[in-house]
Amino acid sequence: MTTAVNTSPATGTAFDLGPARALACRECGHQIPLAAEFACAECFGPLEVAYEFGDIRREDIESGPESIWRYRGLLPVPSTVDTFPNTEPGRTRLVKADRLAAALGVKSLWVKDDTGNPTHSFKDRVVAVALAAARELGFKVLACPSTGNLANAVAAAAARAGWESVVLIPSSLERAKVLTTAVYDGALIAVDGNYDDVNRLATELAAEHEDWAFVNVNVRPYYAEGSKTLGFEVAEQLGWRLPGQVVVPVASGSQLTKVDKGFRELGELGLVEPTPYRVFGAQATGCSPVSSAYKAGQDVISPVKPDTIARSLAIGAPADGPYVLDTVRRTGGAVEDVSDQEVVEAIRLLARTEGIFAETAGGVTVATAKKLIDNGKLDPDADTVLLITGDGLKTLDAIQDQVGPKATVPPSAAAVREALGY
Amino acid sequence: MTTAVNTSPATGTAFDLGPARALACRECGHQIPLAAEFACAECFGPLEVAYEFGDIRREDIESGPESIWRYRGLLPVPSTVDTFPNTEPGRTRLVKADRLAAALGVKSLWVKDDTGNPTHSFKDRVVAVALAAARELGFKVLACPSTGNLANAVAAAAARAGWESVVLIPSSLERAKVLTTAVYDGALIAVDGNYDDVNRLATELAAEHEDWAFVNVNVRPYYAEGSKTLGFEVAEQLGWRLPGQVVVPVASGSQLTKVDKGFRELGELGLVEPTPYRVFGAQATGCSPVSSAYKAGQDVISPVKPDTIARSLAIGAPADGPYVLDTVRRTGGAVEDVSDQEVVEAIRLLARTEGIFAETAGGVTVATAKKLIDNGKLDPDADTVLLITGDGLKTLDAIQDQVGPKATVPPSAAAVREALGY
Ligand SMILES: Cc1ncc(COP(=O)(O)O)c(C=O)c1O
Ligand SMILES: Cc1ncc(COP(=O)(O)O)c(C=O)c1O
Ligand SMILES: [Zn+2]
Ligand SMILES: [Zn+2]
Repeated sequence: MTTAVNTSPATGTAFDLGPARALACRECGHQIPLAAEFACAECFGPLEVAYEFGDIRREDIESGPESIWRYRGLLPVPSTVDTFPNTEPGRTRLVKADRLAAALGVKSLWVKDDTGNPTHSFKDRVVAVALAAARELGFKVLACPSTGNLANAVAAAAARAGWESVVLIPSSLERAKVLTTAVYDGALIAVDGNYDDVNRLATELAAEHEDWAFVNVNVRPYYAEGSKTLGFEVAEQLGWRLPGQVVVPVASGSQLTKVDKGFRELGELGLVEPTPYRVFGAQATGCSPVSSAYKAGQDVISPVKPDTIARSLAIGAPADGPYVLDTVRRTGGAVEDVSDQEVVEAIRLLARTEGIFAETAGGVTVATAKKLIDNGKLDPDADTVLLITGDGLKTLDAIQDQVGPKATVPPSAAAVREALGY
Repeated sequence: MTTAVNTSPATGTAFDLGPARALACRECGHQIPLAAEFACAECFGPLEVAYEFGDIRREDIESGPESIWRYRGLLPVPSTVDTFPNTEPGRTRLVKADRLAAALGVKSLWVKDDTGNPTHSFKDRVVAVALAAARELGFKVLACPSTGNLANAVAAAAARAGWESVVLIPSSLERAKVLTTAVYDGALIAVDGNYDDVNRLATELAAEHEDWAFVNVNVRPYYAEGSKTLGFEVAEQLGWRLPGQVVVPVASGSQLTKVDKGFRELGELGLVEPTPYRVFGAQATGCSPVSSAYKAGQDVISPVKPDTIARSLAIGAPADGPYVLDTVRRTGGAVEDVSDQEVVEAIRLLARTEGIFAETAGGVTVATAKKLIDNGKLDPDADTVLLITGDGLKTLDAIQDQVGPKATVPPSAAAVREALGY
């Protein structure tokens, strides 16, 4: 099945990356054998994994591990992936959100709560896939430039696997995201610059270190496929069907395009009815290059200098921005953006109605959904899924001036009674 | 099946609390009908739920929900519990921890990572059970005194259910635990006092408000049963067998006694082979009343004034302390305590070896396990499970002076190279 050219430097045998067969250019279609490449040699377009899927049935998935590895037959990972030490992400809650639905004025709403992942964001998914592929491709160090959540996920996954890690972050990152990366004891470097600066450095360093897997740079084609598992899980948790519409936060844009790819693959493989669905992108106004391009009817993205509390989404030059535009236009969705104040209000709305505490990125998703409902772009009668991809504990600064104890009282029942108004 | 006296004030019909049949005094055995009682009218002993279990098979559990409700046949909750809005906790990862095992010098080690719960601690389990029972018993408000994690869990569960909440905390609590309680928008009151003061206030207020369910006070018998699910999950995830030894952090002591009860029930029901196991308790030296009593060979607990960074375990007068002593003595375990410095080192050890970031309570568990291995009380050859019950993101202060970026550099590859030592 595997072609002879896919040879592992480590073992001298063919790479076992499951159903993955080649890397294909998203722009010109040029194919190359599976390798640690990310840009097309012909046209510099981004490479994407091409598959030859076997016969995959719902029962096989359902009887698989309680992690993203139940979908290993749809991912570029060895079939033995779940036997290596990894963080076992995925299978997070899909919460029927009736109280939020009532507040927003929609009929059937679900929240995919990816804060339940090992480091509390969806990044554990993409990193687990990247690590599995990187091991097979012969890498020895796990690395990344990050807006925060990826840093947590890479440092934790490397620790669990016994790999070294090199993580580059903007020095302005939230305290929680810095500490919860550093604690895993890899090499964490803070860079005085924004994410786009850090990303450039990573690309430079990736070229210099052959055995460093920068998950979102030189291993990006594999890494990105991990986000398909969000689509797979949503569909499986809905009872093997696709939702009518989904709202996805956009930084580089990778996740949004892969949720769509996941839905399409399920339909093509007969795992779900290929019913139509619409994909919506969510950005913070302070970093909304994709939303701006969408609204202007453009195909290219003009980079911006980010200024928003949604720092995990603060990518001013989003690599997959054009593909986000393709996806939302093809499916009949849209991209919308919201102010930082709307983000904070949405964090509080989600917490108050559903008991889910999201980070600023989740606030962006909920606030955007609200705006899209109010401006008539989201259908209030369609089954709607919101992706909550990160955890409120990591961005406490966003709410610290807004919430707190009702009162601080001396230890007497009378004082408590008075504070409660009884 | 249900006796006529178990009548719901809300519906006029018998309470549906699943297999629960009565409340029985742990001291004198006196039984009363299911109700919102927690102390024996005869002897003031604590009440515990008594059951009449049906025929429960592994297959029924395995085909149940991906949450603690798969064990609803073993809990004091309505059989329809999973149809009401709740946080759906449980089914967290049981991680085979080979790198930590090597570091500690034991053969087979697992970490139960309960940070994957909705509010990132095991308290979501007990609160979900308490809420389900409280609804059936006719309560309208969810309340608690808390050392932090319970506050998060109660506020979130109440929000999700659309209930009001009243949460009392010591005003000295970690910022993260305060904000992540307040965000759910219930009534949060900070009290200038320690947990034991707050607990006394709660008992006083519970007596005044008939429709307030203080989960760990007047609904405590139901609440406590939720911790059995940790035992159930560990056994199921090990392939339906009991571990040889388990290390459990101790605050009030409820969790430890219920993990043991869970193991025993599984054996009695034939769901696992009733193989012997040993239960170990873990405390911080700065609040170690149970460990002190254990070491002194006493049956009674002398209250202490807590002084430790493990604030979630800072209960100086632990309600279930004597039962912890019973449990560890009966099973051949022990209670041990560790310094705050050992706690921090253990947090870092767990993070570095397994990619799991625990809060101080988890550090207490790991540090205690290390000490018990070093002093020969834990058998290095037995299958060992450590309960990591809370999340490092909530107690960042504990590590903030110990970890951080290796360097902060200007945005140049040369600077990064130098910082990395290349
Ligand atoms: C919480 C969170 N949500 C969403 C995203 C967006 O991911 P992508 O870069 O794939 O668009 C990120 C990226 O860092 C993130 O941290
Ligand atoms: C993280 C954590 N672990 C363990 C415990 C101990 O629980 P128990 O009071 O049942 O002994 C607590 C109690 O608050 C806790 O917050
Ligand atoms: Zn090309
Ligand atoms: Zn009694």
